[in-house]
Amino acid sequence: MTVHTGRHFLQIPGPTNVPDRVLRAMDMPTLDHRGPEFAELGFAVLAASQRIFRTKQPVIIYPSSGTGAWEAAIVNTLAPGDKVLMAETGQFAVLWRGIADKFKLDVDFIPGDWRHGADIAAIEQRLVDDKAHKIKAVCVVHNETSTGCLTPPLEVRKALDRAGHPALLMVDTISGLGSMEYEHDAWGVDVSVAGSQKGLMLPPGLGFNAVSEKALAVAKANPGMRSYWDWQEIITFNKLGTFPYTPACNLLMGLNEALKMLEEEGHENVFARHRRHSRATRAAVKAWGLDTQCADAQAHSPALTGVVLPEGHDADQFRKTVLENFDMSLGTGLNKIKGKVFRIGHIGHFNDLMLMGTLAGVEMGLALANVPHRAGGVLAAMDVLKAREAAPITKVA
Amino acid sequence: MTVHTGRHFLQIPGPTNVPDRVLRAMDMPTLDHRGPEFAELGFAVLAASQRIFRTKQPVIIYPSSGTGAWEAAIVNTLAPGDKVLMAETGQFAVLWRGIADKFKLDVDFIPGDWRHGADIAAIEQRLVDDKAHKIKAVCVVHNETSTGCLTPPLEVRKALDRAGHPALLMVDTISGLGSMEYEHDAWGVDVSVAGSQKGLMLPPGLGFNAVSEKALAVAKANPGMRSYWDWQEIITFNKLGTFPYTPACNLLMGLNEALKMLEEEGHENVFARHRRHSRATRAAVKAWGLDTQCADAQAHSPALTGVVLPEGHDADQFRKTVLENFDMSLGTGLNKIKGKVFRIGHIGHFNDLMLMGTLAGVEMGLALANVPHRAGGVLAAMDVLKAREAAPITKVA
Amino acid sequence: MTVHTGRHFLQIPGPTNVPDRVLRAMDMPTLDHRGPEFAELGFAVLAASQRIFRTKQPVIIYPSSGTGAWEAAIVNTLAPGDKVLMAETGQFAVLWRGIADKFKLDVDFIPGDWRHGADIAAIEQRLVDDKAHKIKAVCVVHNETSTGCLTPPLEVRKALDRAGHPALLMVDTISGLGSMEYEHDAWGVDVSVAGSQKGLMLPPGLGFNAVSEKALAVAKANPGMRSYWDWQEIITFNKLGTFPYTPACNLLMGLNEALKMLEEEGHENVFARHRRHSRATRAAVKAWGLDTQCADAQAHSPALTGVVLPEGHDADQFRKTVLENFDMSLGTGLNKIKGKVFRIGHIGHFNDLMLMGTLAGVEMGLALANVPHRAGGVLAAMDVLKAREAAPITKVA
Amino acid sequence: MTVHTGRHFLQIPGPTNVPDRVLRAMDMPTLDHRGPEFAELGFAVLAASQRIFRTKQPVIIYPSSGTGAWEAAIVNTLAPGDKVLMAETGQFAVLWRGIADKFKLDVDFIPGDWRHGADIAAIEQRLVDDKAHKIKAVCVVHNETSTGCLTPPLEVRKALDRAGHPALLMVDTISGLGSMEYEHDAWGVDVSVAGSQKGLMLPPGLGFNAVSEKALAVAKANPGMRSYWDWQEIITFNKLGTFPYTPACNLLMGLNEALKMLEEEGHENVFARHRRHSRATRAAVKAWGLDTQCADAQAHSPALTGVVLPEGHDADQFRKTVLENFDMSLGTGLNKIKGKVFRIGHIGHFNDLMLMGTLAGVEMGLALANVPHRAGGVLAAMDVLKAREAAPITKVA
Repeated sequence: MTVHTGRHFLQIPGPTNVPDRVLRAMDMPTLDHRGPEFAELGFAVLAASQRIFRTKQPVIIYPSSGTGAWEAAIVNTLAPGDKVLMAETGQFAVLWRGIADKFKLDVDFIPGDWRHGADIAAIEQRLVDDKAHKIKAVCVVHNETSTGCLTPPLEVRKALDRAGHPALLMVDTISGLGSMEYEHDAWGVDVSVAGSQKGLMLPPGLGFNAVSEKALAVAKANPGMRSYWDWQEIITFNKLGTFPYTPACNLLMGLNEALKMLEEEGHENVFARHRRHSRATRAAVKAWGLDTQCADAQAHSPALTGVVLPEGHDADQFRKTVLENFDMSLGTGLNKIKGKVFRIGHIGHFNDLMLMGTLAGVEMGLALANVPHRAGGVLAAMDVLKAREAAPITKVA
Repeated sequence: MTVHTGRHFLQIPGPTNVPDRVLRAMDMPTLDHRGPEFAELGFAVLAASQRIFRTKQPVIIYPSSGTGAWEAAIVNTLAPGDKVLMAETGQFAVLWRGIADKFKLDVDFIPGDWRHGADIAAIEQRLVDDKAHKIKAVCVVHNETSTGCLTPPLEVRKALDRAGHPALLMVDTISGLGSMEYEHDAWGVDVSVAGSQKGLMLPPGLGFNAVSEKALAVAKANPGMRSYWDWQEIITFNKLGTFPYTPACNLLMGLNEALKMLEEEGHENVFARHRRHSRATRAAVKAWGLDTQCADAQAHSPALTGVVLPEGHDADQFRKTVLENFDMSLGTGLNKIKGKVFRIGHIGHFNDLMLMGTLAGVEMGLALANVPHRAGGVLAAMDVLKAREAAPITKVA
Repeated sequence: MTVHTGRHFLQIPGPTNVPDRVLRAMDMPTLDHRGPEFAELGFAVLAASQRIFRTKQPVIIYPSSGTGAWEAAIVNTLAPGDKVLMAETGQFAVLWRGIADKFKLDVDFIPGDWRHGADIAAIEQRLVDDKAHKIKAVCVVHNETSTGCLTPPLEVRKALDRAGHPALLMVDTISGLGSMEYEHDAWGVDVSVAGSQKGLMLPPGLGFNAVSEKALAVAKANPGMRSYWDWQEIITFNKLGTFPYTPACNLLMGLNEALKMLEEEGHENVFARHRRHSRATRAAVKAWGLDTQCADAQAHSPALTGVVLPEGHDADQFRKTVLENFDMSLGTGLNKIKGKVFRIGHIGHFNDLMLMGTLAGVEMGLALANVPHRAGGVLAAMDVLKAREAAPITKVA
Repeated sequence: MTVHTGRHFLQIPGPTNVPDRVLRAMDMPTLDHRGPEFAELGFAVLAASQRIFRTKQPVIIYPSSGTGAWEAAIVNTLAPGDKVLMAETGQFAVLWRGIADKFKLDVDFIPGDWRHGADIAAIEQRLVDDKAHKIKAVCVVHNETSTGCLTPPLEVRKALDRAGHPALLMVDTISGLGSMEYEHDAWGVDVSVAGSQKGLMLPPGLGFNAVSEKALAVAKANPGMRSYWDWQEIITFNKLGTFPYTPACNLLMGLNEALKMLEEEGHENVFARHRRHSRATRAAVKAWGLDTQCADAQAHSPALTGVVLPEGHDADQFRKTVLENFDMSLGTGLNKIKGKVFRIGHIGHFNDLMLMGTLAGVEMGLALANVPHRAGGVLAAMDVLKAREAAPITKVA
């Protein structure tokens, strides 16, 4: 049994810290999923989901992990043998690609060094070269949670448009949605993939697909086998505020509250908050004399920061030191950066002092684990955080 | 907004009433799904799940609805064109068959009248006739939630054995598990399908597959496309107490508590409680002069009772009367018995007085909705409930 | 350890069933009791408390039991040797009188048979006879929780007015407030005493005094020693939304939600609901062939019903049977009616089907405990409950 | 409405941060306070309360604030005109003295400068001088919450013993109990006064008196008027696990869980944790170049640190800056140090990273409020926190 003498610091880049209001909203008697009270809830969460995706087109909510929502994007729109263009931005791009392989897609996987976003020029070149329009979809990860590098979906859309290519644009914004600007409609995304446990501030258990009319038309014509993930039946039921199966009622009750909270704060304010915390974190990393995993200054994620440990120092040993001494969970390095990188999540229900506790824990952990670094990262972060406008920020009318 | 002046009576046959202890266990900060504290939870729920399925073989837990767990059973073991034998016991058999169709299985669907369990003799005959062993799986619904009729999985196993047929036995026990005896190993079931929101007393959001070694071997050899539902990767991760994706942590925290509660009461006591409530409910139905949807006295479900309204009376109108006047949700008649039948759920976190409130609500609703009936069903139910042994039942050491 | 297999039926006349919304409102991080967020809460609960007491004068909220609020009424307004007129309506009148004795008041305790409300004529006669106006206060229990008999405060006010007597009118409405009409101002009550755990649907832990300007003036002139219970300092702090000590923040958070719920339902609707449940309960008692403890048809409490067991049958043994067999708590007979009477609480967060579960538990318990009675009380109660207007009652806009 | 974008930092010296486990334990259906399930709870909390007070003598638990428990100590043991010796250690000593005045005690109030604990030598001198033993009680505040200075009760006991004086020793350990060593029996304390909302990690609403046999004997002989606070009746009922009035059931449910948590961590470990946090805080204060309100290096409280702002800077303006910019509540300066001092609470459910968030918030607030200070307090605190033994501290078997 673990004895927590205060709050655990859950500073992995998801699941994120769930607000009490959301947990309490889930902690209510479950509902008749076919009754009128549920329908009110159904309509409310579907409408608010559209607002956070910034879309007027359908949003599908699955009882699933984010990996389920990836699979849903694939099985609705693509059939075995279809060619797709993907970009190796990091582990989550690798995993999504793995699903594409399992469904026998023909994946063109643009290689990457896990320290940048997707190479837009390379994507564009592939599209231009594909005169026969064999590429059915371009799949990118908006916020690569394994590295902390962004790929701007709008730039991919522009590349598609410049190439005059009809492929679908599919975007994994699992750790992007609710954490940073996202414009499903304005950016011309065809399928947006998201999950509950990141910027949406919920426990894991819900997956999302936002889909364009174009994607729906493709799906309608797609003979591939699918049932659970099939968009069409869900959309039909959703018109009545309900679902074709027993939905995860209590997670939806939490989603309703979480989306309400994001709107109370204001989506723009939420995103600004995360950007600010990301800047403060990078200031600390720089002061420590360490590198961020993201090597492109334009691509730093507002959601998390990957930090590279000096050669010869094991990031997982460091994480263990932090967990055991300071009751804080940090994100591990995944796959080929395992042991080299740790990740600090700074999204979800989060504020300046939680960030300072987090960074202090990292700085003390570096010392305890004998990782070479300069002290004072916390001071650098404080310089960022205290440089704010005169107006107080925690109060709204 | 609905104003509840007391507790809503959620007497549909699932989701069932969730105990406060379970809701409160879910209402805790979410966890690092890759950390040691989660692993303890993972091991605990997997072991307790084996105990409730009565199996020493793997149990897979999905973030999904029960329909997902149906799909999982199919895509792991079967490939397009495979022949399966199913039995039309009611709407849930129909729905499962629909998934089989979507995955292009060749379904032999033994017809039924929705008032009995599966016809074991007919199943046996089909198996005997299938000399070439083209049938790859026999799929039955243990507790048909749309009708309240049982099909005993052990009888199907015996039929398979008598026929010397190697087909897999796949059983939907979504509304059976935790509500009545279930013996995955002893009954020779190859794939058991379950969900969280019935006898397990959880909100919806988790699906289960218990799988035999034989089923695992079949899956290993099955080239069919799958990823999310793939057993093998999950089983591998489960050995470390974890999952290949971010699991639905808080639902698992609830599952841990729910399984603990079922063990504190004693599985056998839980099942006896539901049987007793089923008998009391049927005594009331008989006293009202109404019929149960289940027409086989040996096949009455301990989990729910379907009640047939007299010709010319709309069951959904009656349900609406009950909901609006007594804040109780009853189950609707599904598909071809829509409007003819309503269903009373009597499983989950439930006791004698909750049942009496339920039956009183039905009896008053019959009166208010002008459904011809005799008064006094509640008295008949009380006669069953008060006929108990001397020893008190609500206390244990 | 007690294993509850469903919800415990808490059918004592307080503490009553607390709504989930109230429990969840209490289940939030506690507050800086000197900060602006607390002040908002303070103002809100004080204003809503005035609305439920129907007063524009101060309401004082103590972290205390109801017995504390009794003491507060006494020590603020009375000094040793002061004469007070009280009426023996039952155990709670006896207990209040006991406190008066401890504070050395000179109590004239009008005797009663515990089966009626206070004798208004006797009160009036005492007042008329008291030409010297030695009586400083008349203290009555509005809803005598030990018997289920009402004493109408307005009738006492009228008696005072007819007698032209200046004594204060002090009313214990601990189990009345929130359960039935109460008019602190319109009835000319000087001190109203209440508690959180009855009609206010909260856990125990808050006591209330609503006070008239006249009572405040008396208190100001009263040299008696007091500190914790002193009204004046609390009223002064309350003007800023705060308290002179650390208040019971989380109970106040619950109070805020509970008062909101009572207003959502509508105070009048709440009272009508309780009256209806009281009528249904009495119909059951009559059908069983038992007597209510309250022998005055005009004085039956809407909050609870005391039931007399036939001679030779022990009410506490009966209660034990019900608790052990049906997981329901019924109220015990207190003091001189111990073992002769049990009490059914039907207030708080309560609805028709909870009442029917309750009455079924009583009826089955009578049988199991071999208490002579006629079956069918539940049917008689259902006749009352189903006689309702066409309009549905559980929905509001 | 306040929008919290992360957890509020409640760093006043009480109410302290309440653990989720405790809030969830309170968030359960309330109980029949006269039933067997309540009695189990009653026995459990009374026994665990004795363990935290380190006494085998009775502990009385009131539904009250801490001020109520002060009053209880007085009214049980003292009568008007009785002489008591008190020491002006700060605002809470002043308040307790105020209650003594209201109950017409003859208070000898040894003056103090609010920057030290009580003057033990002065106390001893008064006792020695009191040949007639007119002093009936010596009352000291163990941990003066308004200043952060300790007075060791054991030293007062020794002074009493050296003087051979029979006066009762009454100790306010409201913010001491559960936060630091306390030995009711071993230190020869006669009445210990405590509250729920400090080291006990509960919301406010419970007051405590631990009483010696000697105090009980004094109380028995004391003719003073009292009812609510009377020890004797409560002790009598407590022998059955119950109370003479409806107790604050849900707060007691929380108390049970909180005391369990303190024992799981180990009382000694809890106290060591607070001492360490106090040292780290003082290191930060020193680094900022500010003074602690406590001027005696031997008397620093492990529970809170009072910090003096430089002349000309308003501590409440600073606190407002911190609240509005960083969503943290700090303690205000009380009474004569209002505006000069702010207080940092570091007890309750609290850990290293919460402390670092707290100190970072103070340091940034000093900058934003233009309070002259040196940066780097957080680094000094980290130096204290990271100097720990090799063994990890957050895990126990």
